[in-house]
Amino acid sequence: MRLSRVISLITPHAVAEAHCDLPCGVYDPAQARIEAESVKAICEKYQANEDPEFRTRALIIKEQRSELVKHHLWVLWTDYFKPPHFEKYPQLHALVNEATKLAGASGAKGSADPEVADKLLAKIDEIAKIFWETKQA
Amino acid sequence: MRLSRVISLITPHAVAEAHCDLPCGVYDPAQARIEAESVKAICEKYQANEDPEFRTRALIIKEQRSELVKHHLWVLWTDYFKPPHFEKYPQLHALVNEATKLAGASGAKGSADPEVADKLLAKIDEIAKIFWETKQA
Amino acid sequence: MRLSRVISLITPHAVAEAHCDLPCGVYDPAQARIEAESVKAICEKYQANEDPEFRTRALIIKEQRSELVKHHLWVLWTDYFKPPHFEKYPQLHALVNEATKLAGASGAKGSADPEVADKLLAKIDEIAKIFWETKQA
Amino acid sequence: MRLSRVISLITPHAVAEAHCDLPCGVYDPAQARIEAESVKAICEKYQANEDPEFRTRALIIKEQRSELVKHHLWVLWTDYFKPPHFEKYPQLHALVNEATKLAGASGAKGSADPEVADKLLAKIDEIAKIFWETKQA
Amino acid sequence: MRLSRVISLITPHAVAEAHCDLPCGVYDPAQARIEAESVKAICEKYQANEDPEFRTRALIIKEQRSELVKHHLWVLWTDYFKPPHFEKYPQLHALVNEATKLAGASGAKGSADPEVADKLLAKIDEIAKIFWETKQA
Amino acid sequence: MRLSRVISLITPHAVAEAHCDLPCGVYDPAQARIEAESVKAICEKYQANEDPEFRTRALIIKEQRSELVKHHLWVLWTDYFKPPHFEKYPQLHALVNEATKLAGASGAKGSADPEVADKLLAKIDEIAKIFWETKQA
Repeated sequence: MRLSRVISLITPHAVAEAHCDLPCGVYDPAQARIEAESVKAICEKYQANEDPEFRTRALIIKEQRSELVKHHLWVLWTDYFKPPHFEKYPQLHALVNEATKLAGASGAKGSADPEVADKLLAKIDEIAKIFWETKQA
Repeated sequence: MRLSRVISLITPHAVAEAHCDLPCGVYDPAQARIEAESVKAICEKYQANEDPEFRTRALIIKEQRSELVKHHLWVLWTDYFKPPHFEKYPQLHALVNEATKLAGASGAKGSADPEVADKLLAKIDEIAKIFWETKQA
Repeated sequence: MRLSRVISLITPHAVAEAHCDLPCGVYDPAQARIEAESVKAICEKYQANEDPEFRTRALIIKEQRSELVKHHLWVLWTDYFKPPHFEKYPQLHALVNEATKLAGASGAKGSADPEVADKLLAKIDEIAKIFWETKQA
Repeated sequence: MRLSRVISLITPHAVAEAHCDLPCGVYDPAQARIEAESVKAICEKYQANEDPEFRTRALIIKEQRSELVKHHLWVLWTDYFKPPHFEKYPQLHALVNEATKLAGASGAKGSADPEVADKLLAKIDEIAKIFWETKQA
Repeated sequence: MRLSRVISLITPHAVAEAHCDLPCGVYDPAQARIEAESVKAICEKYQANEDPEFRTRALIIKEQRSELVKHHLWVLWTDYFKPPHFEKYPQLHALVNEATKLAGASGAKGSADPEVADKLLAKIDEIAKIFWETKQA
Repeated sequence: MRLSRVISLITPHAVAEAHCDLPCGVYDPAQARIEAESVKAICEKYQANEDPEFRTRALIIKEQRSELVKHHLWVLWTDYFKPPHFEKYPQLHALVNEATKLAGASGAKGSADPEVADKLLAKIDEIAKIFWETKQA
């Protein structure tokens, strides 16, 4: 079961949270996580298939999905998290910065290794944990 | 708690499911649902605020979010659901068609009424219920 | 001469039909067909050219054009076709579903074979035939 | 009957023509024309409906469709037309430039008057006429 | 004269700097600044023109340009700046976070006041100043 | 030092100029130039690295950056330059047309040769020279 779901079960938070820039007030780290799971699955399929056409397609799509991971994380960082959150979690800036780097050229974009995608997923889960704590507060 | 989460808790399914066109095998109706929740929140904020600038911005963003709902539902319909699913659930074609229409001009795009967004959410939950049943099978 | 044009010549229909989600009332299956013709031409050029840079570019662009085929067909299915159409043409749901699958991973995205593109074009023509019949009625 | 269709009937040209940047060799001025017809229909609906929500949505969508008109015309100008065409049709540069301006702020974007859309359509037809002459040659 | 230009004149740095995620190594805060200047100009034109069509268009375009400001700043934060930069400039995380917030709902997206755009421009200049110092080092 | 900067230093022009289709009045050839510098850097990295994954990624990103070059140049041609400019600079139409072709299939998209990118940069500088002259007038 995915970590964000486990966390969402054991914490009594409201369900819906802002994610567009109205702002509508619906944010959910699941958006970044779903794309990162896709990136990992792409890496696994890439390693298991040596057909050059398939591999080129895998890299094209991995590039797009990794960009979506970055975007969803940037939105949380800018639009959801507020100064009090950064004060309470002094590591939060660096954490999101590292996660977005792990979705970029030095991470999931630049590598087709599923272990790199796993590191990205772990970072997203760290952010999700903080996210859900702040929702609970 | 959102329905797709409740369902995901009471059914022993695998967690990750395809959503890009490699295909990676990671699909999740939560993507459509999160955008639709955003649409509903936008409608509520629209009704509660008569400032013309705010209202114009709300309509701009509602248009984008509704389009994302349509897109995520189309992806499920074309990329996740297969002929055996349509055979087992004969109402599935019409259901997705109605849901996408409810996200369009005759639904959430064409109206700022939260009740219209509620109807869209209900349709998405019907699709999600079938989705999770097929994951379990 | 492309089929949609032949059909348009032998049937006395109005020329302009809705395609945006206002809705403006201008729909035309030619939009999907033009992109699918592009996909076929890309496949032919791919097969005729072994230069790896050219082939990678061909796959990048084929991915984009195939996505546009899917999008234009989805718009017809959701925004143009109405319940009476689905009643009169019970095969219409499956037809559009198959056509969009033929533009995706199990079709034109996943293959650089011009014959796959031909199958996609044939499906689009079946949809276009129904489309123009409904315009005439 | 739209002009490009009339022309396509009376001239013995090949059907498919390049439009992506492989290049695939499939170009068709119908792409710009369909979007411009949409723009015109939006203007007409705008004038006939004073509901502020509807009008805002009309302006949002008109902006997008007008941008597509510009894009399709730019593609013809850069990717399809070659130096010999510009030599044979010395007015062609100015013609496309005026057409794209008519799709922008000083034309269909900046105005909701159907007559402005008509001027845009007329310019597109002038370009289409030249286009089909060059296909024939 | 814009600040980034003044700075670029008085410091002997290399001209080209990474901005895509290859990474290509071409970054330039001018990208964010040009979009923010556009946002400011839109605000000024909005205040000077009470035509409702014009105002709606201004808000549509301001939304897009503000999003581009956010995107360009996010790219600098994730792709250009590295741990040693964050160590040397401990305020850098908060600075970029504030700048992106100033381009969003609580800033240039949510307001048509040119003074809000001025604050955004000032923040971008602070980031640009640090950027050019790091290029020089 | 990049040419547009040198020119901007020796000519007493206003700094900010239109680039969105409000129009906001902020145009700057630097936008096209930054993307073209990126294209050149990508070509150089491509030639220096034989890893197939890296090369595929380089081609994916080069395709996107070249498209942005075309887009920024098209915007200048349609939205900034006016009939009096085309009258004063009779070569301007052909110049922009050649520059956009050099960013497309017969130029930077179709080739990974840094010299092709250099030709593109030189054309952009010719356009920038005219642009700044017209700002000065």
